[in-house]
Parts: sequence; C-alpha cells; structure tokens
Amino acid sequence: MLQYGDHGGGVGYLVGQENRGLEYMFIMMNAARFGVGVQGIAIAERAYQKAVGFARERVQSRPVDGSLPRAAPIIHHPDVRRMLMTMRALTEGCRAMATVAAAAFDAGHHHPDAEVRRQNQAFYEFMVPLVKGYSTEMSLEVTSAAVQVHGGMGFIEETGVAQYYRDAKILTIYEGTTAIQANDLVGRKTSRDGGQTARAIAAQIEDTEADLNNNGSADALAVARRLQLARLAFLEVVAFVADQTRASPNAVFAGSVPYLMLAGNLMAGWQLARAWLVAQEQLAKGVDEAFMRAKLVTARFYADHLLTRAPGLRDAILDGADSVTGLALESF
Amino acid sequence: MLQYGDHGGGVGYLVGQENRGLEYMFIMMNAARFGVGVQGIAIAERAYQKAVGFARERVQSRPVDGSLPRAAPIIHHPDVRRMLMTMRALTEGCRAMATVAAAAFDAGHHHPDAEVRRQNQAFYEFMVPLVKGYSTEMSLEVTSAAVQVHGGMGFIEETGVAQYYRDAKILTIYEGTTAIQANDLVGRKTSRDGGQTARAIAAQIEDTEADLNNNGSADALAVARRLQLARLAFLEVVAFVADQTRASPNAVFAGSVPYLMLAGNLMAGWQLARAWLVAQEQLAKGVDEAFMRAKLVTARFYADHLLTRAPGLRDAILDGADSVTGLALESF
Repeated sequence: MLQYGDHGGGVGYLVGQENRGLEYMFIMMNAARFGVGVQGIAIAERAYQKAVGFARERVQSRPVDGSLPRAAPIIHHPDVRRMLMTMRALTEGCRAMATVAAAAFDAGHHHPDAEVRRQNQAFYEFMVPLVKGYSTEMSLEVTSAAVQVHGGMGFIEETGVAQYYRDAKILTIYEGTTAIQANDLVGRKTSRDGGQTARAIAAQIEDTEADLNNNGSADALAVARRLQLARLAFLEVVAFVADQTRASPNAVFAGSVPYLMLAGNLMAGWQLARAWLVAQEQLAKGVDEAFMRAKLVTARFYADHLLTRAPGLRDAILDGADSVTGLALESF
Repeated sequence: MLQYGDHGGGVGYLVGQENRGLEYMFIMMNAARFGVGVQGIAIAERAYQKAVGFARERVQSRPVDGSLPRAAPIIHHPDVRRMLMTMRALTEGCRAMATVAAAAFDAGHHHPDAEVRRQNQAFYEFMVPLVKGYSTEMSLEVTSAAVQVHGGMGFIEETGVAQYYRDAKILTIYEGTTAIQANDLVGRKTSRDGGQTARAIAAQIEDTEADLNNNGSADALAVARRLQLARLAFLEVVAFVADQTRASPNAVFAGSVPYLMLAGNLMAGWQLARAWLVAQEQLAKGVDEAFMRAKLVTARFYADHLLTRAPGLRDAILDGADSVTGLALESF
C-alpha cells in the first residue's frame, strides 16, 4: 500500500491550472486507451506465434482425411487450423484497424486542409473505443485459443502461454472497462452527432464493397456479401442508438457492449477486405506472392467466420433490451 | 513425477479381460465427460452468485436514466445487468440440458419399453459431447464475465473470482478437448446414423415452438421465433455433416466445433423455452410467482441474446470450410 504523510505530512503540488485536472488527465487517458488496445493486439500476436510453433511440433492422431498413415503434427487437423486462423484473422484485423486509426490521428493534426483534419479527427475519435474495447476483448479469445491449441501443456506453466491468457484479462478492465468504452461509443461518438460519423464510415465501407464486387471473383463476392450484411446490421444499430439514447437510455445502454463488438468487428473486417483488394493488385504484379496469398485467405476467413457474428449482435441489441433489465432486482 | 520400479521393479495386474482395456476406460470416460460438463455448470453458478453479490454492494456512477441523483450499486447499470443475465441464462440453460440428459440416461437403462430405452439412450449419447463441450466453453465466458463485473477487484486475488476463471480453462481441455467432443458429435453422433437422432431431437424442438405459438403472447412468439431460426440453422448443418463427412472430411471437421457450439446453444435454449411454458402454467395457478417470473425473463433473455448466435455459426460452417484450410502451411 502506498502511504503519504507518515513522516511530517504530505505536500501536494498543483500541476497546470486549477480545475483543469480532469481535462489534462484525458490527454493521457485517450492515448492510454489506444495503447491498451495495442497491448491486446501485441499479446494476441505473441499467443498466435507460440500456438503456431507448438502446432507444428506436437504430433497427435492421424489426419481425418486419411492423407497420412501415421500421427501428424496437429497443425494438420482442421480444428487446430480453425483456431489458428481465428487467432490470425482477429489479430491482423485489429492491427489494421489500429494502424488506420493512428494514421487518421496524424492526418487529423497535420493535414493542410481543415475539413480533412476535422473528418480524420472524427474518424479517429470513433475508432478509439473500438481499438481499446474490441482489440482487448479479442485478445481474450485469442489467448484462450492459444492455451487450447497447447492442450494440457498450455494449462500448466512450462510453455508460458497460460500467462498470456491471464495477462490479457486486465486489458478489458484498466483504462476504462469495455462497458466504459461502449458508453463513450454510444454517447460521445454516436448519439452526440446523431450518427453522422458512423454513417460516413459506413459509406466508405460501401465503397470497399463496390470495389470487391467490381473484382467479381467468387472470393471477392463472398467477402463483399459478408461485409455488406455486417454494415447493414451496424447501420440499423446506429439508427437505434442515434434516435433512442435520450428517450430510452436503459434500452440503448443495455446493448452498448454488443454495439461495440459489432462495430469493432465490422471495422477490423473492413480493413482486411481493403487488404484483400491491395493484395490482389500486388499479386497481379507478381509482388511477394506467399505474403499476398496469405492476406487473401485471412481476409476471406475473417469474412466467413467473424463478420458472420454481426447480424446476431444486431438482433440481440434491437430485440433484447427489455430482457436485459426485466428481471426484478431481488430475483438475481 | 510418479515413478514405478525404483525399489525392486514394478508389478502390473490385469484388471478384467485382456484387450478390453480401452472399452473399460470408456465406461469411466463417458461418465467423466458428463461430470466435467457439470463442473463447468457448477463453476459458472459459483461465479454468477459471486458477481451478483459484488454488483449489489459496489457503488459507482449514477444510473444512465437519471433515476437516482447519486452513485448507485452497479447492479443498476444496464451493462452489468446484461453480463449477469448472460451468466444466469447460460448457467441455467446448461444445467437444464444436463439434467434432461441425465434423465434420458436413466430412462435409457430402466424404462420397461425397449424402444423407449433405445430412443433415450440415443438422445443421451447425442447430448454427452454437448454437455461436456458447450457447458465448459460457456463456463469460460461466464467466469470471464464474473471477473469483468468485479473490475480491477476481480483481477487481483482477494475476491477469489480470478481463480474460477483460471480453473475453468482446464475444463475445455481434460477428458477430451472441445475439438475431441466435436469429433464425437460429428462422427459417432451425427454422421453414423445419417443425422437421424439429430433430426428426431429437432422435431421435438418444433413441438416446443408450436406450444409457444399456441400460447400466443408477445414473449412466447419472440422465444418461438428465435428457437425456430436456431433449429433451422442446426438442421442445415446436420444435413451438411450427415452428407459430407465421408466425401469431404476436412470441410466437415473444419466446422466441427462451431457445430458443437450451435447444437449446445440450441439444446440449452430449447430447455429454457420448455421452462418458459412450465413457468407460465405455474404462474396461472399462482405458484411461486417470483421464481416463475424469473424463469420467463431468463428464457426470453436466452432467446434474444444467445440463440441469436446460431445463424452466424451456420453461415461460418457452410461457407467457411475452405478458408479454414486454405492457408499454405508455411505461411502460418
């Protein structure tokens, strides 16, 4: 325990101007929130690398398709691949989201055009609770999967992977819990401007869908379709939040964290969809084929396995508000 | 480390008949799997109770609807209610699923009619990987939420809730990982009888939907609708698994754990829907009003917030098999 004043009394010094302490603290706090989101991405990446390493070495059971007559390294088993791809797609998606947000922060401060600065600053501010909230929640999913890939070896201490899982849990709590990020997303980032920033981002996502549809390959069409369904789910929730936060605050805040999870999921999936388009262009030029092919598969995996969570979150938010607060307090 | 033979050599004794050891082990193993599922339910219940206790005592921030002029116990905040309801609904749903499975086990052994015994045994065997796999995966979600409700107090050790979260992680690993349960569900429980048992259970679920629709209240119709959408998603996946396990084992096993999660979610939600109907009847008779009202709200919450995950899992399984195994091994 930290104690002041044991030997002759504590002395306080005023830093800056009187009554501006909370404002000063938020300069630190916003940077810290972004930083904690990046911590989530970092620990997820570490967990992914460790799980891949283990899955290449650990030999157990024959492949389900009979392609080997003997036990194989577990990376050959489809469910291990699914776990590793989930970890990879979540980590890459969140990293891309954080990078794009950081670029918007820079443009918001340094672009010569004031209107472009304003748009970038609004984009950045919308993304901060998603980078913090979604990337840290995803780090729990990824580090849990890393332990799961390791099996019993993951639960005991010698591999070190259980420590990542334990450490990740603080990330959804400190510098504002996920619910506090969600309050920020609902209040200051969506309701206050009537959903304008959220809808402007959705319009950019629609442009990405159009580019994918223009590409026209089966892969591009599949990614575009999942992105569209997630975007439409997002827009329905944005309309609900923008219209109802004042009239029905309990109903909106009952869905605030699901809204954050839907929005973060969409933004990360959108960035991977953009990466899909760039990778396709680079492949056509023959640049770094293995890297670009990996981007294509990872983006498609995200669309198939993660963007597909978005419509269910919309349904829970729009239909499920009453059941969140319907139980009598004494019945818990 | 356990060592045999340090002092004069170890002696082995044959238990039972030669070459039947694996078969004997599975008598223990099936009971153990069911038991580990119940461990998941037990630790989830403990975590729920602890989180409710903390949420009633911990005072922080004014309610978002302005209903109190001062900081309130956090159980008044909608997102805390959402977390507690999620924990409660998952725990009650899984407990009901395990109880119904146990009753089927008894009827499968002791019912006088051989055909009824056969049906109950098939039902029980279908449920075992769900009781093990789904209840233990849900215990991770519930214990994580319990830490989250406690905030920073949960992450440090003095409340004891972090220990539940750590302990729950072994449950998805020992006595067969979640993927091993999913292999059992795909292979022995679905593919082997061409999906017959799965479809017979779905027909029973349809009967529950009909009963809810006959009730006709807004609540009953809402639960029936979510149950129907989840059941239809389940049936699409069952058809895929029954038809494709031999021809495309990699594609089916790529979705085996999502199939387990979809099936477990549906079965737990179904039991709560049945509980809704019973509670409604009991309420009409004036029996134990507070308890019955809590059942109604909990069943509705499950339908709104948890059954809504099912269609997304179906989409991931049916569209997402190729992207699970599409990444070149050297690109991980």
